[in-house]
Amino acid sequence: MDKGRLEAFSDGVFAVAITLLALDLAVPGPDSGKGSLAHQLGSRWPTYAAYVLSFFVIGIMWVNHHTLFKSFARVDRTLTFLNLTLLLFVVAVPFGTSTVAEYLRDGGSDAQLAAALYAAIFLGAAVSFAAIFAWSIRDGNRHTPLPPGTERAALLRFGVGGFVYLGALVVAFINAAAAVAAIALIALYYVFERTSG
Amino acid sequence: MDKGRLEAFSDGVFAVAITLLALDLAVPGPDSGKGSLAHQLGSRWPTYAAYVLSFFVIGIMWVNHHTLFKSFARVDRTLTFLNLTLLLFVVAVPFGTSTVAEYLRDGGSDAQLAAALYAAIFLGAAVSFAAIFAWSIRDGNRHTPLPPGTERAALLRFGVGGFVYLGALVVAFINAAAAVAAIALIALYYVFERTSG
Amino acid sequence: MDKGRLEAFSDGVFAVAITLLALDLAVPGPDSGKGSLAHQLGSRWPTYAAYVLSFFVIGIMWVNHHTLFKSFARVDRTLTFLNLTLLLFVVAVPFGTSTVAEYLRDGGSDAQLAAALYAAIFLGAAVSFAAIFAWSIRDGNRHTPLPPGTERAALLRFGVGGFVYLGALVVAFINAAAAVAAIALIALYYVFERTSG
Amino acid sequence: MDKGRLEAFSDGVFAVAITLLALDLAVPGPDSGKGSLAHQLGSRWPTYAAYVLSFFVIGIMWVNHHTLFKSFARVDRTLTFLNLTLLLFVVAVPFGTSTVAEYLRDGGSDAQLAAALYAAIFLGAAVSFAAIFAWSIRDGNRHTPLPPGTERAALLRFGVGGFVYLGALVVAFINAAAAVAAIALIALYYVFERTSG
Repeated sequence: MDKGRLEAFSDGVFAVAITLLALDLAVPGPDSGKGSLAHQLGSRWPTYAAYVLSFFVIGIMWVNHHTLFKSFARVDRTLTFLNLTLLLFVVAVPFGTSTVAEYLRDGGSDAQLAAALYAAIFLGAAVSFAAIFAWSIRDGNRHTPLPPGTERAALLRFGVGGFVYLGALVVAFINAAAAVAAIALIALYYVFERTSG
Repeated sequence: MDKGRLEAFSDGVFAVAITLLALDLAVPGPDSGKGSLAHQLGSRWPTYAAYVLSFFVIGIMWVNHHTLFKSFARVDRTLTFLNLTLLLFVVAVPFGTSTVAEYLRDGGSDAQLAAALYAAIFLGAAVSFAAIFAWSIRDGNRHTPLPPGTERAALLRFGVGGFVYLGALVVAFINAAAAVAAIALIALYYVFERTSG
Repeated sequence: MDKGRLEAFSDGVFAVAITLLALDLAVPGPDSGKGSLAHQLGSRWPTYAAYVLSFFVIGIMWVNHHTLFKSFARVDRTLTFLNLTLLLFVVAVPFGTSTVAEYLRDGGSDAQLAAALYAAIFLGAAVSFAAIFAWSIRDGNRHTPLPPGTERAALLRFGVGGFVYLGALVVAFINAAAAVAAIALIALYYVFERTSG
Repeated sequence: MDKGRLEAFSDGVFAVAITLLALDLAVPGPDSGKGSLAHQLGSRWPTYAAYVLSFFVIGIMWVNHHTLFKSFARVDRTLTFLNLTLLLFVVAVPFGTSTVAEYLRDGGSDAQLAAALYAAIFLGAAVSFAAIFAWSIRDGNRHTPLPPGTERAALLRFGVGGFVYLGALVVAFINAAAAVAAIALIALYYVFERTSG
């Protein structure tokens, strides 16, 4: 197995998925009878907010992917299929994004389900990342093995994102907007805390 | 000819095709009058199942492509056009996927035709793979030539996927769901048997 | 300027354009009231034929691009923008393809215009290729300069595809189907003649 | 951080975004009752003009990206997220393009808003580019540091595109067509002035 081609394929999938987010931005034309452009853009603000949020979350995942794979000394079939599972969730992000953007303002159980779906997609990606990290701890899979006895702590630290998304998933059924806000706060924290360091 | 660019182009096509699968996931918005989000997601389960299945089948094809091309010592125009034929089928997978997801539950001859179409696309890919493998057996096309006298057996072993998809194509006209289940079982076998080894 | 990144960007554009061709393959679902799946697939055969034809024509252009760029010793801004012009036509191929597939059977002036549009897109690509080739003849742009005095003949030979597409464009206004058939024959000739050599 | 993968991911995003521009080119089929193909193509000329303009503007941004990144000696998280912000605007270009193409001819405040949106997307990209350039001036980020005392002038020179787009954004609220024409003139200038040099 060749790490370069696995990364190139993954980069391609990330790039297409992040670009497909923009398909949702479109507004109906002037003949659609849906009001002025200003009105349409204004009423569709959840779509634009969701676009920015999902764009950065996919971007953060790409950075994680990049950082993680750089530490790998080798690539095997198991990693290939774990990576494919991760990409399955990455590719589903535009779907979760458009669903939450359309249903969030409706409130009620549909909004809750949409927010839960959105959180579940990120949870699936986080679990896939944790599985890839667990794979990497095995002998010989990393350029620099973790110090003995620290693997469990490292895995726990790595998997913390998963717990946060699990929390957002639970919160979604109580307050849909709060769940989305939590996901946005995680993204903000990740971009600024880690960047300013 | 440069193997790296042929692989990069193929990786790009695989990456776009696998990501386009997600376009089918979308549900109509709250104003569509198609019922609650829970109802819509529930009634569209064949679409979600087909998404996962096709995602992994394209992923498996990508792994095959990767493994096969790694063994090639050189690249020529014949390989380029055989590879293009393979990609023609890969790119058609989202079409077959959405057709089978929409028509399978209808039962009757439309479901059979949809399942047959789905199997036929994979059959086309498998035949293209076999043609690429046959090309590679020729003198000088592989880094490590196959031992003399084993080429025919190797080609047969390589082509076994094609026979399975041919079987699924025939079965489709008897029982559409069974044909799709067979394709899913092949994918599961491939992911787990080969990965656990 | 870095040839590798220009090739990688071009490969990405070719890969996306060739994959977007498949968006046309979709058939309406069972609730669309457009008849059985068999009927729909049958009545849409021009779409499937156009898909195969355009797929191979884009593939051939990619091979040309690959072969041509391999001969370049350097890359500059002029080449970058000539290449961008070429990609402008490549990216328009799915548009020409779906237009010709939808209008060809109507006959009459719409079919003629659709076929002319299809030929015009390929003509634009061929002229762009010729401009890139002309650029490459300049001192120092090729690894191996052409023998003195042969440049004009080489350019003419290289540009012959353009004349053929120009012919198809003219023919389109007499007989739309004949123009498309001519484009298909060129593609067939290119794949088989050059491959069997 | 690995500059190669950051460039490859960015190239992928640019390639997909530039190709998605072509989705707008499609015309309704012959059964749509929207008149002859000639009429439809003719009445949709703003879409075709906007396609060509946006294609070259994205292409110019890709060239800028390429040139800028080539000068970088290293890559860090800050650059990664500045680059992500740039790509957020690049990916939004097809949205701005289709909006301006649909609303420009309507005149009135909708046309003004559409032109302002179009200019705002390019302004966002220009500001992101300026931020990336400012990042690159820091110690050690460039292969060849700028001469001491020239950084501010260089940043100003680099950021001039941003001021032009800001001007177009203001002009949009006076005359929408003039704003789009200004953007087209900048693109023309950039392609020809810089290429002929």
